[in-house]
Amino acid sequence: MTVTLSALDTCESSFTPLVVIELAQDVKEETKEWLKNRIVAKKKDGGAQLLFRPLLNKCEKETIGNQNLYLVGASNIRLLLGAEAVGLVKECTDAAMRAFTYGTRHSFKGFHVRRLLTSGIVTQVFPLHDNEALKKLEDSWYTRFALKYQPIDSIRGYFGETIALYFGFLEYFTFALIPMAVIGLPYYLFVWEDYDKYVIFASFNLIWSTVILEVWKRGCANMTYRWGTLVMKRQFEEPRPGFHGVLGINSVTGREEPLYSSYKRQLRIYLVSLPFVCLCLYFSLYVMMIYFDMEDWVLSLHKDNESVWTSLLLYVPSIVYAIVIEIMNRLYRYAAEFLTSWENHRLESAYQNHLVLKVLVFNFLNCFASLFYIAFVLKDMKLLRQSLATLLITSQILNQAVESLLPYWLQRKHCAAVKKKVQALKVDVDTTLYEQVLLEKEMGTYLGTFDDYLELFLQFGYVSLFSCVYPLAAAFAVLNNFTEVNSDALKMCRVFKRPFAEPSASIGVWQLAFETMSVISVVTNCALIGMSPQVNAVFPESKTDLVLIVVAVEHALLALKFILAFAIPDKPRHIQMKLARLEFESLEALKQQQMKLVAENLKEESQEDRREAT
Amino acid sequence: MTVTLSALDTCESSFTPLVVIELAQDVKEETKEWLKNRIVAKKKDGGAQLLFRPLLNKCEKETIGNQNLYLVGASNIRLLLGAEAVGLVKECTDAAMRAFTYGTRHSFKGFHVRRLLTSGIVTQVFPLHDNEALKKLEDSWYTRFALKYQPIDSIRGYFGETIALYFGFLEYFTFALIPMAVIGLPYYLFVWEDYDKYVIFASFNLIWSTVILEVWKRGCANMTYRWGTLVMKRQFEEPRPGFHGVLGINSVTGREEPLYSSYKRQLRIYLVSLPFVCLCLYFSLYVMMIYFDMEDWVLSLHKDNESVWTSLLLYVPSIVYAIVIEIMNRLYRYAAEFLTSWENHRLESAYQNHLVLKVLVFNFLNCFASLFYIAFVLKDMKLLRQSLATLLITSQILNQAVESLLPYWLQRKHCAAVKKKVQALKVDVDTTLYEQVLLEKEMGTYLGTFDDYLELFLQFGYVSLFSCVYPLAAAFAVLNNFTEVNSDALKMCRVFKRPFAEPSASIGVWQLAFETMSVISVVTNCALIGMSPQVNAVFPESKTDLVLIVVAVEHALLALKFILAFAIPDKPRHIQMKLARLEFESLEALKQQQMKLVAENLKEESQEDRREAT
Repeated sequence: MTVTLSALDTCESSFTPLVVIELAQDVKEETKEWLKNRIVAKKKDGGAQLLFRPLLNKCEKETIGNQNLYLVGASNIRLLLGAEAVGLVKECTDAAMRAFTYGTRHSFKGFHVRRLLTSGIVTQVFPLHDNEALKKLEDSWYTRFALKYQPIDSIRGYFGETIALYFGFLEYFTFALIPMAVIGLPYYLFVWEDYDKYVIFASFNLIWSTVILEVWKRGCANMTYRWGTLVMKRQFEEPRPGFHGVLGINSVTGREEPLYSSYKRQLRIYLVSLPFVCLCLYFSLYVMMIYFDMEDWVLSLHKDNESVWTSLLLYVPSIVYAIVIEIMNRLYRYAAEFLTSWENHRLESAYQNHLVLKVLVFNFLNCFASLFYIAFVLKDMKLLRQSLATLLITSQILNQAVESLLPYWLQRKHCAAVKKKVQALKVDVDTTLYEQVLLEKEMGTYLGTFDDYLELFLQFGYVSLFSCVYPLAAAFAVLNNFTEVNSDALKMCRVFKRPFAEPSASIGVWQLAFETMSVISVVTNCALIGMSPQVNAVFPESKTDLVLIVVAVEHALLALKFILAFAIPDKPRHIQMKLARLEFESLEALKQQQMKLVAENLKEESQEDRREAT
Repeated sequence: MTVTLSALDTCESSFTPLVVIELAQDVKEETKEWLKNRIVAKKKDGGAQLLFRPLLNKCEKETIGNQNLYLVGASNIRLLLGAEAVGLVKECTDAAMRAFTYGTRHSFKGFHVRRLLTSGIVTQVFPLHDNEALKKLEDSWYTRFALKYQPIDSIRGYFGETIALYFGFLEYFTFALIPMAVIGLPYYLFVWEDYDKYVIFASFNLIWSTVILEVWKRGCANMTYRWGTLVMKRQFEEPRPGFHGVLGINSVTGREEPLYSSYKRQLRIYLVSLPFVCLCLYFSLYVMMIYFDMEDWVLSLHKDNESVWTSLLLYVPSIVYAIVIEIMNRLYRYAAEFLTSWENHRLESAYQNHLVLKVLVFNFLNCFASLFYIAFVLKDMKLLRQSLATLLITSQILNQAVESLLPYWLQRKHCAAVKKKVQALKVDVDTTLYEQVLLEKEMGTYLGTFDDYLELFLQFGYVSLFSCVYPLAAAFAVLNNFTEVNSDALKMCRVFKRPFAEPSASIGVWQLAFETMSVISVVTNCALIGMSPQVNAVFPESKTDLVLIVVAVEHALLALKFILAFAIPDKPRHIQMKLARLEFESLEALKQQQMKLVAENLKEESQEDRREAT
């Protein structure tokens, strides 16, 4: 009675509570029994072969209240075996890769259970934090402030590969920005305005952004190879929980599952989603025009009666616009999620791709349209610099506040309230687990790395798109990211429920998004340099020659980018070698298997021949 | 004694002669014996488990001459089993894909035997033509002239996938060019010179070239899926025959093989090959300048005393230059092969990649530099059109003559001579096989599809790079390709030795080469349209605006190209489904295997537990 509040006697003595399931209040006893059977049943009977027990035993329930909270746990041996089903490949002690036995332990994201969520029987399912491991992780991660690398492997052990990869990317990206920040600083300090210096900075910037993205791929391969997810055999993808349709036979698996015609889905995409996105884009541009009106109005006010107040007022429209952009981004995000979910994609990956596409296009336009307008229509470099700085800094401050600090503060308040309530119960049993479940059940749910990557993506846009106008952007980004690491870590450890761990081999579609951004930034930077008065002064007579030269340079840079991306191998040589060895070994094994078969066939045939001969 | 000239009695009665090996005249008896043992020995002893016999038996040798010709054959059962080693996956009757049993039969390109070639013991190794099958193939392919599709599946059955894919691509490409040729014709017939029409043609051209390349990928996947090579498991790549180095242990396979440091190879590439290629490029440009001098000289001659002769003389420089280009291309090809072979690449694929890169860069510059010079430096559209036409037509005529017709004529002469010689022997045995071997041993060796693809690649360049100046190019290309199909077929069937069949899943690096060419052609066509006097007339005041608009259109077209390439799936839906099903089935099988293992482990453990308990 010291370790857990309700120690149900099971045949297996080692119960590790892993996941909490909260059922709806009106769920009947039969349903509970059925659910329990599904979870406890042996694997061969279609169950999960896990342990299942209510959080409170009967007498406690009467004292504390009728809670519909259940714990799902596993014996240690089940944990070991479960990993095999994920199909991980892990490096063994002899540095070769072999099919694997024990890996990420918390990845049994029960699909069936997830379907119950959408049907309303289960209110929520979440894994419990492991307080001891969490404390250890926090200590090595962010509580002791020191300039050191993050403990990526420990993060991976606790939160899984997807989240560890995000923090790895965040760290890598921050360090990769430092050279740009260092080179950018003197431009600000010494007010360098010579165009040749800007050209040098922009060229460095463009090559640099290509190189860092390629090098990341290699670093990422290194990490995921170590974790055993690089050559992860993908499971066959089941339909996502929200997917609905008429029951039919899936032609791939031969199993019965809901089917939904792709024709109908296309109709929904092209007749509803696409027009809606276009409307949103139009609205975003409309808001931008209002911003420019405001800007004009403030400027005229400042001109009419100049004072300290009006000069401060000059920054107000940009700040207001930055806040409005953030709000619009968040609202649009909900709409996009709703629409994509309504499009009824069968696979989680298709859903994610459509969502990412929708959100990226809108956020790109929403954040950068005003900057493009200022740069290429108004051609006001001073305003561009001011606007860029305001947008960048405001969005960073807003993000950190809304994402981590505010929720953390709310969480602290809630925590105190729960503690008080539990202490007021005055029961003589150990209430640690009960308190923990009560606390974590009210925590927010971490919705995946999408928003975090999106933030970095937009930051990359601010830094690279107009880098030759505002070299200081990289420095701000670096500063922000150093605190971002800590606030994100705080968010993961203390603000949100522990997420289910998910294996992944790379940052996926975000690699493509960042690469696309770096291609666009070549175009914008070349155009900006071509427009600068210093460059124009070199070609006083023929603007056409200037444009032609700028275009030629731009094409050369783009070609160089593609050649670089092609020439730098995606995986480091030592990993290529190890993968080749793995492939060779599996081929050899296959060959030997076949040889055996052939030999057996030959034997049989020769025996038959002999029989016929006699 | 009727079927083969020398019927050695072996334990297996069905001897199908497949490959001829010609040994050097001074090879000792021991070597012959060793080679025979290697070929005849059972697979498990490291042999090829094939049959081996001299072409002539002892008494015949005395009559006809001391020929060092040997036949390698196989019993039918060996043929069936050999296919398994290739690792093909083939569609079964139930339209699903399964690990395979019987496929391309002639793919045992004996690596060891190939090494003997470089050491000079074996003079040549080649498969024999199968006259009966060849006759059938020819009948359905090219001898009866009719407008119909090629029998790609029969070609694949006789020559293997790589060659069948080339003919498939040639056919597809020809049909894909027809719309361009049809749209281009009226421009020539009605002498349309309006720029808007050219813009329409060029835009169509650019979109079209993207679409056809993407659609080809799908068609190719369709074909190779049917042939079972789409998801071919690649064998571990052995070192190529020419590779040499100090003997050591390969870290991937753990086997003893020659090692050569990649550092030395890099030195050879960057210190010798690269400068040599640059020198060749410079030389090519130098020759181009001589051509322009000649052009000037002829023009001045024509101006001084105009006559029919001098007006004909005007075409002479272009024709001479076209011939010189062809000669330079061929010479450079030998140099590139020598250099790449000297770079000592370990793998055949690395060798091929370096060779293709070297040859492509040179041929591109050699063929198109003069056109670029005329278009963008001289800005003489009339000369460009004339030059383009001469280059295209001359190179096509030269190619067909040098590649197929001339060798065919030589071959015919040789054939008659051999027949005479054999008839003069007056032996009373059947000499068909002897005659065939004697004939084919003197035939040229087909060096792979490289030159054929290169020809198509350059043709694609002529058609697309300057399409808006010379819309007729597509029509010429279509005409050429209709005859090219036949002359290439003739070449494969009658001029060259039968090549070893090689499986392949796609046209490989050529897909990338064609796509790159279509990207370059967007740039050139936009530039050409921007330079045309009609477009310039629309912007009489500001040339800068014109350039900016052209650049904007170019960027939009490039973006559209990339989006199209991204949006069109590389494999048709039904093949995706089938592959998914294959993957699902193999995953299920793997899972069941693992479940078995787990169950066994559990059993053992519980037994141990019980034992401990008692």
